[in-house]
Amino acid sequence: MKTEQKVHHFSSGIKLESGAGLDSFNLIVETYGELNSGKSNAVLVCHAFSGSHHAAGSASTDKKAGWWHELIGPDKAIDTNKYFVVAPNNLGSCFGSTGPTSHCEKTDDYYGKDFPDISVLDWVNSQEMLQKKLGINAWACVLGGSLGGMQALQWAITFPDKVKKAGIIAAAAKASSQNIALNEVARESIRKDINFYEGDYLKKGLFPKSGLKAARMLAHITYLSEDSMNDRFGRKMQDSDSKVGETVDYQVENYLQYKGEKFSEEFDANSYILMTKAMDSFDPAKKFNNKLDEALKNIKAKLLIVGFKTDWLFPVDRSKEIQLAAMKANIASSYLELDGVQGHDSFLFRTERYENNIKTFLGS
Amino acid sequence: MKTEQKVHHFSSGIKLESGAGLDSFNLIVETYGELNSGKSNAVLVCHAFSGSHHAAGSASTDKKAGWWHELIGPDKAIDTNKYFVVAPNNLGSCFGSTGPTSHCEKTDDYYGKDFPDISVLDWVNSQEMLQKKLGINAWACVLGGSLGGMQALQWAITFPDKVKKAGIIAAAAKASSQNIALNEVARESIRKDINFYEGDYLKKGLFPKSGLKAARMLAHITYLSEDSMNDRFGRKMQDSDSKVGETVDYQVENYLQYKGEKFSEEFDANSYILMTKAMDSFDPAKKFNNKLDEALKNIKAKLLIVGFKTDWLFPVDRSKEIQLAAMKANIASSYLELDGVQGHDSFLFRTERYENNIKTFLGS
Repeated sequence: MKTEQKVHHFSSGIKLESGAGLDSFNLIVETYGELNSGKSNAVLVCHAFSGSHHAAGSASTDKKAGWWHELIGPDKAIDTNKYFVVAPNNLGSCFGSTGPTSHCEKTDDYYGKDFPDISVLDWVNSQEMLQKKLGINAWACVLGGSLGGMQALQWAITFPDKVKKAGIIAAAAKASSQNIALNEVARESIRKDINFYEGDYLKKGLFPKSGLKAARMLAHITYLSEDSMNDRFGRKMQDSDSKVGETVDYQVENYLQYKGEKFSEEFDANSYILMTKAMDSFDPAKKFNNKLDEALKNIKAKLLIVGFKTDWLFPVDRSKEIQLAAMKANIASSYLELDGVQGHDSFLFRTERYENNIKTFLGS
Repeated sequence: MKTEQKVHHFSSGIKLESGAGLDSFNLIVETYGELNSGKSNAVLVCHAFSGSHHAAGSASTDKKAGWWHELIGPDKAIDTNKYFVVAPNNLGSCFGSTGPTSHCEKTDDYYGKDFPDISVLDWVNSQEMLQKKLGINAWACVLGGSLGGMQALQWAITFPDKVKKAGIIAAAAKASSQNIALNEVARESIRKDINFYEGDYLKKGLFPKSGLKAARMLAHITYLSEDSMNDRFGRKMQDSDSKVGETVDYQVENYLQYKGEKFSEEFDANSYILMTKAMDSFDPAKKFNNKLDEALKNIKAKLLIVGFKTDWLFPVDRSKEIQLAAMKANIASSYLELDGVQGHDSFLFRTERYENNIKTFLGS
């Protein structure tokens, strides 16, 4: 699989939904496969909250597996023999695209807390600038799970002529009150970390790691299903030899402690806040009197909406809501409900039915 | 309603399940109604995680309403014209019974982090000492919701001759992996508060308020249902005039911030850790090869098991598990499933069906 990584610079900057803007910005992008001569085989994949441009490729000694490597690759659901897969890291994230950890020319310092608010629409607008730069008139498909699914939906709404298909997976047309509440607890943990300094930690050379860790531990629970946690950890006690800390009794505690700790070494606290706020504020129906079908009525792309029965972060009812609105708006849309034993995280893992449905959708 | 509050001192101390012990301890207790001459009308109510001995009575200018005031009182579900209701505060809590904030005679200091681990069985054992002290041979009923329901179940198992009926409401026979995980995130927030000092904060005159606040915000979400949050808060924005802080956008954020802050002023961090650990470790079937029906087989009390459909902390399947085990063990047991619009917290609120069923159960 031909794999390339490139940082694209946009010197014209971007005007953001909030009214603020960036004078210039970078998007780091990985691509898989090759663009055909008609430039008609490009598939944009949008990452979820903590994802990155590294979407495909197996793990190696010096690199983690891509977050969607079970789905992207030769002969896989998103077949890189056929498609040119484009995976950018989102604006405001912390893996190479411009975000709070980037250098701001104006202030000659980290952006930090002064990085402007970002919305799902801003991401889509920046991705459209990337699309232009790549000379692609229309994506064969835009696909994403979770927050990535929100971007896929926004793409279909905002650029009806620039996307042929959109796969909206394990997503929702808006965050629920509970979603916002859970994000707020995570943000609260980060903000109250003694090293947060109201977002100015980088300027002091500090990192609010313990707040980030608690935030991730909580988020991680929401990505799994109760059953999958019971199957995997149940009430099993952790061996004292392999405990990450004295306070740990159960395996599930050890696992969360470990995962949280690792995440806190990789992610940026301001990006965490910014990206959860983007998720909270996503609500394309808002401008249409809360009528989602009105928001969807100009869509030309074919939609595939996928929900997982064990997902309690964005339960299947949220997916059905999109499907029902699409039907009301006379949009070509299919709805697929999968068992998905891993809860919300199911969108990351291959199953035969999941793979076949995405293949069929892309090939249709 | 005759209401009395009393601190009972137990100078003989208590041996705890962990092997540790307390040389002496206090239980603060509120009682409602009057004990009859045969001492046969006493009902023990066991509080949930953050409850107290103040179980009944309406709110007044200087006092909050009792946590179960919708159910306890004259002509209410637990009718104080008929029953003498006994409501102790649990050992290890922080509202007047001996706990981490109490003075330890041996060290002449706060117990703090040195307060021993407490289990649900320890609570029941301490309540049985209270029962003796009150001269009551058998409770007409032991009732509790959530962690209180766990105590009611343990009562029926441990003292088959000392409890006639047990009402196990919105509870489970053991914490799930997800329950433990959520508790661990809360504990992590508390432990990492800069003022926690590994549990020794009181000796320094400090309080890990921000950790407690985040812990409570999270717990609060688990007490509500997604639907009840959507109905109450939805995606409504908070008025800027009434925001508790600059970072708040949505009403649900404001509400959680407010509730968390208030809780952090009232609760003790070591008690939080201790009581969640007690919940995590509750598992009466463990000694019986994980066969719950074996654990229940000596029960003589009639059981009423109540689950609420919107409860996702202890979903109805956990209640059904107890009912099925009781049936297998040939215990007289009824199972009641209620809609309960408030999620897990539904056990706190009166509905006609809930009230009637408890009345019928107590009167049967």
